[in-house]
Amino acid sequence: MPDSTLPTPADSDADHKALRIARAMAAKEGTTPALGLEIEAAGEGFARVAMRLSPGTLNGFGMAHGGMIFLLADTAFAYACNSRNVQTVAQHASISFIDAGRAGERIVAEAQERAVKGRTGVYAVSVFGEDGRIIAEFQGLSRTIGGPVIEEEQE
Amino acid sequence: MPDSTLPTPADSDADHKALRIARAMAAKEGTTPALGLEIEAAGEGFARVAMRLSPGTLNGFGMAHGGMIFLLADTAFAYACNSRNVQTVAQHASISFIDAGRAGERIVAEAQERAVKGRTGVYAVSVFGEDGRIIAEFQGLSRTIGGPVIEEEQE
Amino acid sequence: MPDSTLPTPADSDADHKALRIARAMAAKEGTTPALGLEIEAAGEGFARVAMRLSPGTLNGFGMAHGGMIFLLADTAFAYACNSRNVQTVAQHASISFIDAGRAGERIVAEAQERAVKGRTGVYAVSVFGEDGRIIAEFQGLSRTIGGPVIEEEQE
Amino acid sequence: MPDSTLPTPADSDADHKALRIARAMAAKEGTTPALGLEIEAAGEGFARVAMRLSPGTLNGFGMAHGGMIFLLADTAFAYACNSRNVQTVAQHASISFIDAGRAGERIVAEAQERAVKGRTGVYAVSVFGEDGRIIAEFQGLSRTIGGPVIEEEQE
Repeated sequence: MPDSTLPTPADSDADHKALRIARAMAAKEGTTPALGLEIEAAGEGFARVAMRLSPGTLNGFGMAHGGMIFLLADTAFAYACNSRNVQTVAQHASISFIDAGRAGERIVAEAQERAVKGRTGVYAVSVFGEDGRIIAEFQGLSRTIGGPVIEEEQE
Repeated sequence: MPDSTLPTPADSDADHKALRIARAMAAKEGTTPALGLEIEAAGEGFARVAMRLSPGTLNGFGMAHGGMIFLLADTAFAYACNSRNVQTVAQHASISFIDAGRAGERIVAEAQERAVKGRTGVYAVSVFGEDGRIIAEFQGLSRTIGGPVIEEEQE
Repeated sequence: MPDSTLPTPADSDADHKALRIARAMAAKEGTTPALGLEIEAAGEGFARVAMRLSPGTLNGFGMAHGGMIFLLADTAFAYACNSRNVQTVAQHASISFIDAGRAGERIVAEAQERAVKGRTGVYAVSVFGEDGRIIAEFQGLSRTIGGPVIEEEQE
Repeated sequence: MPDSTLPTPADSDADHKALRIARAMAAKEGTTPALGLEIEAAGEGFARVAMRLSPGTLNGFGMAHGGMIFLLADTAFAYACNSRNVQTVAQHASISFIDAGRAGERIVAEAQERAVKGRTGVYAVSVFGEDGRIIAEFQGLSRTIGGPVIEEEQE
């Protein structure tokens, strides 16, 4: 089975670096093993992250808890806004819930940069179900605080 | 040590019912045992829920992951907007991140109703650290879909 | 000078109708003449509206008041979410301010549908300056209330 | 008729200064005369501003345009977050629309500080109708950029 995170010849150096950054961030996050989050792809200003809806992510209706849908979107947002190797944090985020995520389903969040000005960035994240339906739309506002995310030799 | 969720003589019947509803919701949620969420208090249009920041809730800086802070606030929001025993769901939520939550710290989200009109409700949720500092401010928009949350005999 | 709102051969019937709906809505709005709002384009799930930054739209720094930037985005959002001729209202909106709008500048808001499920819709609106820079990013949540926006014979 | 903005003996020096700052800001804003905005009260981290719903503020249903409700809330937010005489700007705002504002009605926005940490502030603004019903709930995120709003001798 192909590894969709493997760089392809079409990817730029910037995209390769973005993927290394996302993987380094994921490796240090407690949420990665706790929730089984998987980076599917990452590039400059972009990231796609997946989560299988295990029992611990469900609400009382047996559907994905809204907080877990948010967490997945927020994770993709974090990788996208740190993709140029300058430490950046979330300041604000909002989410609209459109459809339910079902127990056992593998849902995917795709973050895309919309605008950057100075230290401020805006990112749109869509969360999809396995069948491609939209589960949620998320918008994140980031602020660059400076310093590298990974060391230069790692770049 | 007193159990702060025990009804006191000052609590109304509506508040007693709200607490039973919150407990019934929590009992069915997969996130409750996975994250060790605890209901501290609940009343009509109100709920307070706590979470200990275990390793699985942390980001790469060893601080509370923003998604986990959101999940806690969203949980308190859910109990507050279902407190009158009419099934109600989250439509939209936004969160501003103010301060970090530290590993091992017990953080608390307090949800308060701001406005209800027809099937729409607006709730403000503040998330606090152990020392009372504000970690995040959350605003939720709910929509009533009808039907009871718990059966009448349970009420 | 070409009128960019004139339908072109490539436009679908649905897009022609969307433009008639947007124009009918604009004709009844008090804000249209008060602020000189102009519809630049409209289609199914889409609208672009412009505003010249007159003295009455400025803040104390002589820049576009944030509320006026929001109003322009909200107007494009309204035309986009009513474009299928079913009355639809805004429930929630959020906006991130990226850059300033200058006195006298003509700014443009472009609304695009992101997701629709049942009676709920999510729209992304970008506000641009004359030089194409992004001034603000807006996200709107709509709810369909039913009934036509314009009469059938007008369609 | 009493002027509700007149300081009373109970007001602190900080509140007196906040009112002078709000008035100085309003005097420079193009929106103040265009929309007839009136400062009703201002204090440290607090402001209340009113607007009469004139024809130019209405949507196609003859009700307050959502953008005008936002603008009023945003104005109160601006006075509240600049009330300590350090220049502060809006970064993000979100609004939930609860009820309609009627033609000719005088609506009021009341902004209250919820949290401040470093250069970041969070404010809740409620917009009320003449009968006290809630029309909208707004949440604003501010960032302090430094420098005084009014000169020291004005203070």
